[in-house]
Amino acid sequence: MSEYITVSYLTEAKDLYKKAEAIAVGMTVGSWTDLPLARQEVLAPYLGTVGSVTITEEKDGLQQGIIAIQYPTGNITPDIPALLTTVFGKLSMDGKIKLVDIDFPPSLLARFPGPKFGIAGIRELVDVHDRPLLMSIFKSCLGLPLGELETQFAAQIEGGVDLVKDDEIFFVDDKAPLAERLAAYNRIIETAGRPVLYAANLTGPVHQLVDKAKYAIERGANCLLLNVLPYGFDILHRLAEDPDISVPLMAHPAMAGAFYAADEYGIASSLLLGKLMRLAGADLILYPSPYGSVALDRTEALAIAEHARSSNGVHKSAFPVPSAGIHPGLVAKLYEDFGTDVIVNAGGGVHGHPNGTADGARAFRAAIDAVVQGQTLAEGAKSSQPLALALEKWGSA
Amino acid sequence: MSEYITVSYLTEAKDLYKKAEAIAVGMTVGSWTDLPLARQEVLAPYLGTVGSVTITEEKDGLQQGIIAIQYPTGNITPDIPALLTTVFGKLSMDGKIKLVDIDFPPSLLARFPGPKFGIAGIRELVDVHDRPLLMSIFKSCLGLPLGELETQFAAQIEGGVDLVKDDEIFFVDDKAPLAERLAAYNRIIETAGRPVLYAANLTGPVHQLVDKAKYAIERGANCLLLNVLPYGFDILHRLAEDPDISVPLMAHPAMAGAFYAADEYGIASSLLLGKLMRLAGADLILYPSPYGSVALDRTEALAIAEHARSSNGVHKSAFPVPSAGIHPGLVAKLYEDFGTDVIVNAGGGVHGHPNGTADGARAFRAAIDAVVQGQTLAEGAKSSQPLALALEKWGSA
Repeated sequence: MSEYITVSYLTEAKDLYKKAEAIAVGMTVGSWTDLPLARQEVLAPYLGTVGSVTITEEKDGLQQGIIAIQYPTGNITPDIPALLTTVFGKLSMDGKIKLVDIDFPPSLLARFPGPKFGIAGIRELVDVHDRPLLMSIFKSCLGLPLGELETQFAAQIEGGVDLVKDDEIFFVDDKAPLAERLAAYNRIIETAGRPVLYAANLTGPVHQLVDKAKYAIERGANCLLLNVLPYGFDILHRLAEDPDISVPLMAHPAMAGAFYAADEYGIASSLLLGKLMRLAGADLILYPSPYGSVALDRTEALAIAEHARSSNGVHKSAFPVPSAGIHPGLVAKLYEDFGTDVIVNAGGGVHGHPNGTADGARAFRAAIDAVVQGQTLAEGAKSSQPLALALEKWGSA
Repeated sequence: MSEYITVSYLTEAKDLYKKAEAIAVGMTVGSWTDLPLARQEVLAPYLGTVGSVTITEEKDGLQQGIIAIQYPTGNITPDIPALLTTVFGKLSMDGKIKLVDIDFPPSLLARFPGPKFGIAGIRELVDVHDRPLLMSIFKSCLGLPLGELETQFAAQIEGGVDLVKDDEIFFVDDKAPLAERLAAYNRIIETAGRPVLYAANLTGPVHQLVDKAKYAIERGANCLLLNVLPYGFDILHRLAEDPDISVPLMAHPAMAGAFYAADEYGIASSLLLGKLMRLAGADLILYPSPYGSVALDRTEALAIAEHARSSNGVHKSAFPVPSAGIHPGLVAKLYEDFGTDVIVNAGGGVHGHPNGTADGARAFRAAIDAVVQGQTLAEGAKSSQPLALALEKWGSA
């Protein structure tokens, strides 16, 4: 029996149903009604069909709404380039249209790797099971000598973060090469006496990234950061499916706004950063929080977390990491919105603390401990001077 | 002496100059005025600067316009993932902003491969020097047995096309595997007794595409088609720079609309499909023509051709292939807009000819011959029954 991928588009047309039919045929077998019967028999298994048409508005003679097209799974190889080319290749250039969702049958899901560690696996690695994790970002990396980066790293660890990530623009690292950073940071982690994940930025030619990842792991990397969209989803998939890449993969959303930011074009953030990132194998998914200046629409931000964490029957869950603009005063709100299985991630909100980086991290840890115990942040601040100072500086939401 | 990449963005802000300054600092060293002098000295070579600010409109307290930021070339490794992450990673998610252009110093250009064959090289390969080339697209590929594809291929060759390309959604080719297609089509080309390029769709895991390309070439491929954006620009770069990949690379624009279609977000088509495709090594660049139903803005379509063909002091030129909606009646217009160094590319405009595919190609060849000789299409149709029939069906522009 044929199985289908159901693809939803937000679009407009004089007659939305006719447009849906044209897409179903045009994006699969090309033409249909004018084909001889014998050809129709050959091509029937490849023909797309209209799943549904929902008109949400009609004005100026145009119907706007969501159309769902069913593409036979047999039309694609199980990889994201084939998927995106098939369902949004030509179509992306054909007037107002936004790719908003894709539903996969379990048989196709199973041919994608999904997260290797997932939320449970990452909790094992950092040995933290009952609270949101805390991650911090280097204030900056580019151009800094290794010694200064070590100082930054040590301060973050001292304050109690569970994960640290490289700046995503850290490509030129001649002053602090990857192998040297790994050695230096691992010494600091060892001294701290507790597990900390350090996400090293994976860079270089795309066809060598699998080897580069293995090189990093041999030199002590315990997590890898990837700019998934600039490199293309498929390399994430190939890293995730490789059994020798034995560390979690952290997906950075660099360039994602170029896809999702327009209302009427592109690809919805929940699909791009939620479903597709998880499918391709991200253990941790960074994306704009709904709070900061680089903010994502709240519904979309929650949908990304939903796609990352909810059961899809096949894959492990991925950790949502709603980022940007996070300070300790937002932790209660963040916990309310995202629950326990979330990573609190901050850069300026850690380093900008009045007492510096280590107390910045302590303020976050105190805020997390407070909300998990059902306290308000103000209550938590009574037993944490760092949190009290942070709330004084940033307020609370 | 430092060199800079100059990156232009279309954006808006209360104070556009302040926004430009914030981007210049925020996207490079992170912070500046609050840094101690010693740190400023270390980081100065990495600091971005404001090149220019051009306000085009002020309304509702917002300035709209173009800001140009200068990024030191030393901030990036010479690859497109590093470039795009650095200049549009976080920034793409930061409100209304569109990446409209990037100017590269020659020293950086020289570190990208550019086209291996270019226009002159492709003209040598097909031995056509004085007219636009003619390319045709299979009516459809997916699901068809090899025999039917051979029939389609032979008809296109018989009619006189210079290049034929696979359908870009041709991923599942179990009924006509790559090696078998190559063998069959090459027999047809040999029989025809003149050189024809066949662009075979390059598919598979991204980290294996270099090997897959070599496999195809060993089995007779003389041109390769790549869905560059779904795979990511970097694999095009790696294919282009590999000396053993001795055939032209044809870039398909699948998914490009997700980047360029919105006015206020994403990446301009002239940069995406013109400059970056050429930089990364496309010999032939497909993109929406300004004529058809899947149409691109005329200025942008001409700018892509300009970026593909004009001297940049370093790279060979690339063939622009403005596609979609092309029929023989558009050839005069196309020649007027794009000149001789263009590829006339059609699918429906070839196969939809009243007499079928071969005459469809003949009609195009007659139209091309006519305009190159300074004749009107109507004049050309006097000595070409296929062209006369085509003009009758489609009219002329």
